Amino acid sequence: MSSDKLELISEQRCFDGAQRFYRHDSTAVGLPMRFSAYVPPQAADGRVPVLFFLAGLTCTEETFMIKAGAQRYAAQHGLMLVAPDTSPRGAGLPGEDDDWDFGTGAGFYLDATQAPWSKHYRMETYVADELYGLATSALPGDAGRVGVFGHSMGGHGALVLAQRHPGKFKSVSAFAPIAAPSRCPWGEKAFSAYLGPDRQAWAGYDASLLMEQSQCPFPQGILVDQGLADGFLEQQLNPKAFEAACAQAQQPLVLRRHEGYDHSYYFISTFIQDHVDFHAERLRA
Amino acid sequence: MSSDKLELISEQRCFDGAQRFYRHDSTAVGLPMRFSAYVPPQAADGRVPVLFFLAGLTCTEETFMIKAGAQRYAAQHGLMLVAPDTSPRGAGLPGEDDDWDFGTGAGFYLDATQAPWSKHYRMETYVADELYGLATSALPGDAGRVGVFGHSMGGHGALVLAQRHPGKFKSVSAFAPIAAPSRCPWGEKAFSAYLGPDRQAWAGYDASLLMEQSQCPFPQGILVDQGLADGFLEQQLNPKAFEAACAQAQQPLVLRRHEGYDHSYYFISTFIQDHVDFHAERLRA
Repeated sequence: MSSDKLELISEQRCFDGAQRFYRHDSTAVGLPMRFSAYVPPQAADGRVPVLFFLAGLTCTEETFMIKAGAQRYAAQHGLMLVAPDTSPRGAGLPGEDDDWDFGTGAGFYLDATQAPWSKHYRMETYVADELYGLATSALPGDAGRVGVFGHSMGGHGALVLAQRHPGKFKSVSAFAPIAAPSRCPWGEKAFSAYLGPDRQAWAGYDASLLMEQSQCPFPQGILVDQGLADGFLEQQLNPKAFEAACAQAQQPLVLRRHEGYDHSYYFISTFIQDHVDFHAERLRA
Repeated sequence: MSSDKLELISEQRCFDGAQRFYRHDSTAVGLPMRFSAYVPPQAADGRVPVLFFLAGLTCTEETFMIKAGAQRYAAQHGLMLVAPDTSPRGAGLPGEDDDWDFGTGAGFYLDATQAPWSKHYRMETYVADELYGLATSALPGDAGRVGVFGHSMGGHGALVLAQRHPGKFKSVSAFAPIAAPSRCPWGEKAFSAYLGPDRQAWAGYDASLLMEQSQCPFPQGILVDQGLADGFLEQQLNPKAFEAACAQAQQPLVLRRHEGYDHSYYFISTFIQDHVDFHAERLRA
């Protein structure tokens, strides 16, 4: 896709690189979409590795760039950061804006199969194909060195998209992911509407169930951070299910449990350097 | 003041310390006020140096803690960060909420002398006396080691409060400060209303005019960062006036001009480590 399809909304200097916000007419979603990109100074000399960040419920393409403090480390390593919005906006569907955990701001990084959601709620194709393509063509990302991470709903997105698109994402990590969405209230609500009542159809978007069917898809390991004072841990996140699935799949996993940390970006910012370092090491190889 | 006057709104773990938000009935302002404090892990072992951050127009006590990424360095150095709100809230004065650069969110860190503003708009006394007292009694700040910095209107506040309260603030720095407010539109608008039409009364709140009357009030130097792509530089900020005043006062000043950087927190976050390091060095002495 050519860069003239992208409208640059703003560009601000940050750690000697460029913090940019873009708008474009998305083919996958069928609506205008926004995303953010931090382009490190090293991009002046050629294509650089790309790290996608998928944000959680209610967030936008701005949240991560404002709150996480990742640009410092992206600039140090010469990584480009790309953050999509968390759903289509303005699809105009009934009920779309009623709940904070469904519809707008809650696209769950999947392609809905059920009407009326299936027309626009196609965040998997948007991220893994369309935005991936833009980041590695119009923007200076290197298609051979792409990683993905995310938080909460976006942690689910990262763990799922990395598994569903083998070879596309070379490195994957997550903060407090919804690790077994087909077995928690947030996931059950979203999957019922987006994917229909048949739970068989949900398995393909459940990071833990996908992992159970695999054999070590990421030999370089997966990093997950989880706060133990996270109010959503017990009912929604279920890192144990993913841990068990990784053990079964012989998938190396570093799951760090942090005493006292909650679900917020204060938690994310504390450990963001470790994640950027983790991806940088794997994407440079 | 005892800590039972403070209502802890929230506490979140961050870099092994505590990100806190408080509410209290302010004596100085005569209304409830909110502020934020980042308490570093070192406070478990005794009182720690304190660094006040004064934010700019339209900001709240949250802005700096969310956007600047300062907690990492505060935790490394064992500094407590304290950020007040930028004005009284809910004073109920006519015109208070009409403009983004005056009234609510625009207290200018001064004590208004003109009715109706003089009743509640007393941000100087609030910050330099009341919050200073709270930070070094109810909170674990060391009254002998307090610094101040800020951004834009808050850069003005830092440079002015440090000069008006000699001995209280041992270190001072600023990002893109309104350096000569009695000679720029933002300052003229605010000072006219808060301090009255007599420009003589404005001089006491103009960092550059105060400096012209001084003899090296900060022998350890002052640090100012200014972006050269800052849209407010030409009309509102006037760092040259402060630079000239420092030269006249034989005040050591490091004024760094940064090509391409604007007025945003992307600029602040890029250089925040330098500022926290600057204060830590001076407050440990």
